[in-house]
Amino acid sequence: MRGLFITLEGGDGAGKSTQIRNTEEFFARRGLTVTHTREPGGTRVSEKLRAILLDAENKEMHAVTEMLIYAAARAQHVREVVEPALERGEIVICDRFVDSSIAYQAFGRELGDMVAEVNRYATGGLKPDLTIWLDIDPETGRARATHDKDPDRLEQESTAFHTRVREGYASIAKAEPERFKRIDATGTVDEIRDEIYRFLEELCKARGL
Amino acid sequence: MRGLFITLEGGDGAGKSTQIRNTEEFFARRGLTVTHTREPGGTRVSEKLRAILLDAENKEMHAVTEMLIYAAARAQHVREVVEPALERGEIVICDRFVDSSIAYQAFGRELGDMVAEVNRYATGGLKPDLTIWLDIDPETGRARATHDKDPDRLEQESTAFHTRVREGYASIAKAEPERFKRIDATGTVDEIRDEIYRFLEELCKARGL
Repeated sequence: MRGLFITLEGGDGAGKSTQIRNTEEFFARRGLTVTHTREPGGTRVSEKLRAILLDAENKEMHAVTEMLIYAAARAQHVREVVEPALERGEIVICDRFVDSSIAYQAFGRELGDMVAEVNRYATGGLKPDLTIWLDIDPETGRARATHDKDPDRLEQESTAFHTRVREGYASIAKAEPERFKRIDATGTVDEIRDEIYRFLEELCKARGL
Repeated sequence: MRGLFITLEGGDGAGKSTQIRNTEEFFARRGLTVTHTREPGGTRVSEKLRAILLDAENKEMHAVTEMLIYAAARAQHVREVVEPALERGEIVICDRFVDSSIAYQAFGRELGDMVAEVNRYATGGLKPDLTIWLDIDPETGRARATHDKDPDRLEQESTAFHTRVREGYASIAKAEPERFKRIDATGTVDEIRDEIYRFLEELCKARGL
């Protein structure tokens, strides 16, 4: 049986790493094999692309260039890691996926529809079975983030940019309510975990797992 | 006045480098400012992408990944180098452009229409004013190429691949006869140069240069 593809989305300080660990634990306790991966990155070629994307020195990078590098890293990641794991019947938990490109590039950088189009080619049409969006006000999130001493290229962006990113996520939540679940990330770690577990229980029930 | 954008295409051993120098000379003699550039590459970010593309070690790279990295390098190159030079009224001579992606990725790698679509986004719709295709039979070209001691990732491809690439170029020549000019690259260096100069004279006449 084909596995499940779960992605987590959310800005700085939303507690994504902690909740990814909780999500892994949910499936591990059921005795299911979990592959945990991340974007951009997850393969040798994709990690090289990630280094170019996050290098704070690459200030001259155009928005379309950036969007295409993310898509390239994703194309490799999907074919080398995600699809093979799903075919082996595993649970793939991925830190960020196409929704990040829609939020950050289509909305944040205002590139519009080309982002979804390019990503359809990059993924070969693969969509997550469930996406958890840990939503937090950008200002609150950045104040909570702990690694701000050496901010990367995206973290250096303006509040206006991060507000557009949040609007991007909100528009996906509206368009795809079945797949894309918003969770208020101002709650406690345990509250958020419980809410995620409810969505995971629902999904498992629906898939007979 | 906006400048002219001239691109040269052709496989190994077609004599492209020599004819690029001749093309530069044609415009320099007329007192015009020439910017000579190349793809993939031509900018700091694009050269980093070029290194990933040509690295013979990256054998696991998927065709869609490769296509998107070429497009990313191009997006940066167009916006940072080509468009600004054209706006300054210069003659831009570029070693390979979108036609290479059509020939190598759409035809060679059999990715089809997505290549043209992605490249429309990458270039913002920019097209060369004139493209010179130095056409040579792949086997003959490779026998003539001098740098085969350490072949890069594309040079290692099969003859069947290079035959599809040639068919790709031929199909562009058929679709866009005004812009895309085929020259038989089995001729002598001087014969090829004279033929290129005839196309350049025509173009200059048409543009009042």
